[in-house]
Amino acid sequence: MTATIHRLDNREPSLEPLLQLVAGDMNAVNTVILDRMQSQIPLIPELAGHLIAGGGKRMRPMLTLSSARLIGYTGTRHHRLAASVEFIHTATLLHDDVVDGSDLRRGKRTANIIWGNPASVLVGDFLFSRSFELMVEDGSLKVLKILSNASAVIAEGEVNQLTAARRVDLGEDRYLDIINAKTAALFAAACRISAVVAERPEGEELALDAYGRNLGIAFQLVDDAIDYVSDAGTMGKDAGDDFREGKMTLPVILAYARGDAEDRKFWKDAIEGRRQSDADFAHAIDLVRKTRSVDDTLARARHYGQRAIDAIGGFANGKAKDAMIEAVEFAVARAY
Amino acid sequence: MTATIHRLDNREPSLEPLLQLVAGDMNAVNTVILDRMQSQIPLIPELAGHLIAGGGKRMRPMLTLSSARLIGYTGTRHHRLAASVEFIHTATLLHDDVVDGSDLRRGKRTANIIWGNPASVLVGDFLFSRSFELMVEDGSLKVLKILSNASAVIAEGEVNQLTAARRVDLGEDRYLDIINAKTAALFAAACRISAVVAERPEGEELALDAYGRNLGIAFQLVDDAIDYVSDAGTMGKDAGDDFREGKMTLPVILAYARGDAEDRKFWKDAIEGRRQSDADFAHAIDLVRKTRSVDDTLARARHYGQRAIDAIGGFANGKAKDAMIEAVEFAVARAY
Repeated sequence: MTATIHRLDNREPSLEPLLQLVAGDMNAVNTVILDRMQSQIPLIPELAGHLIAGGGKRMRPMLTLSSARLIGYTGTRHHRLAASVEFIHTATLLHDDVVDGSDLRRGKRTANIIWGNPASVLVGDFLFSRSFELMVEDGSLKVLKILSNASAVIAEGEVNQLTAARRVDLGEDRYLDIINAKTAALFAAACRISAVVAERPEGEELALDAYGRNLGIAFQLVDDAIDYVSDAGTMGKDAGDDFREGKMTLPVILAYARGDAEDRKFWKDAIEGRRQSDADFAHAIDLVRKTRSVDDTLARARHYGQRAIDAIGGFANGKAKDAMIEAVEFAVARAY
Repeated sequence: MTATIHRLDNREPSLEPLLQLVAGDMNAVNTVILDRMQSQIPLIPELAGHLIAGGGKRMRPMLTLSSARLIGYTGTRHHRLAASVEFIHTATLLHDDVVDGSDLRRGKRTANIIWGNPASVLVGDFLFSRSFELMVEDGSLKVLKILSNASAVIAEGEVNQLTAARRVDLGEDRYLDIINAKTAALFAAACRISAVVAERPEGEELALDAYGRNLGIAFQLVDDAIDYVSDAGTMGKDAGDDFREGKMTLPVILAYARGDAEDRKFWKDAIEGRRQSDADFAHAIDLVRKTRSVDDTLARARHYGQRAIDAIGGFANGKAKDAMIEAVEFAVARAY
């Protein structure tokens, strides 16, 4: 089993080239983020700062910045828009943790545990409004259209996921619809808007959209796989969180589809909340292994990763393209 | 004690003239609302529809429509924008009920009680995103600026209110800051945007903004007073809700400021959650009466109501102006 896609050297794929590519731009983005999360109400920067300074990778703004590099954009409008994208993402995380009742994110206590659900809901609303203010300041109706549509799609995806919770017969297609909406839509929009500010042809917009969308799906699939292989110490996420929340993810969908009657009964009981002990989770991991469901979730991730890489095949070769390709390889290799 | 401001006839003020003025336009707005709250995820229109069809007065879209009449706008762009304003308001209500743990609104069970907090949070996010999509479709960056700013101000006001909860020494000025943000800002924006789409001079924008803002404050003050005089059967709101939630409103602020040491101890205990029985609420009503705090809350409301009326003094006389003046009179007379 190889972790990477078509790598010709022996180096492990890393996010480092992408981080280096956008380091200067990211400083500018961070300045906007820190400036625009301020408020006369002290709880707002306190709570928002906990999450924003909390070790997130800033993956989505990095995608805006690297996409801009890929197409040779030399302006600065994308700094404000990358901050706007990060605010949408942060608002979503705050609301997600309330919805899921999560107590740990990136190895830290969640805002809803520290400040309570009401504060998390309202500060999320504030950041969401602020993200639109940033877009309006930029002034591109096309960017506003892309990001307001992405926001609506994300919310729809979250509701879709909520109504799908604890339904063991969810199926891979509906699951893909959900992660397309709740994760991949913002990855796609983050990439696409760089082509809009650079006034590139629509074909380039769509290519970047496809890169972001496929990377987003790959990213989410690997995240779902990690829940069945890692521990909280290394990933900042509790292994078994998804399992204990009865969350339907691809490893479960595959293990359920491939299991016998006894296995299916176990999964139904587990997902419906009747078997959630540590011993049950250990059994779940056994079943997932037996059915190769994590391996094949990762194989699916590599498929989308490869599509992401091919989507930007038409752009000029160079540092930006290399870094964006290696970012995909890193994303799909994380679980190994 | 008279209920109205400068009324020369003996008729009770009513919302009827405003309703009649905008009835045709409101049909168009309702069509947009019903059309745009749809989604492939059935829970979204189901939950949103519960609140949207639930007997709300559509006060904010009515203000957009009547303001447009006042200035002689004959286009249709404001229909979509009025729907957008109502979506922002509906999203805020959904999140408010989660934040306050409310179980009753307009005499009906709240969405969070029926479908749970997670669904209310997420459908609120969806409506909020949809409202921006509607604005983007209209295409005015100026409208987008006004409404994205209002949204950020509302969220800040909500957080401000949250941090002020159960603080008996809040004071009238900070309280006014809060209701200015969480209620009056959207009333102001709803009126103002009609002048933007009609391309009227900035002075008219500001006059309509002032009408909406002062009406919004008056409206909220009367709402706060009602909590200490009415019952759920007539108003669709439980009398004593604010009291039992430890919510600081102007009647409490005045009663606290005007009370003796014993009264103040009672208010502190009540607002901090230690005295919330029916007998305590009866005592609270006694104290509020003794200090004339409801009467003077209503006097404050009449002050802002008068300012709202004077703000539109410069516009041409006619049906629209008469209806908008009478709407203010109705708003401040509601508690009598």
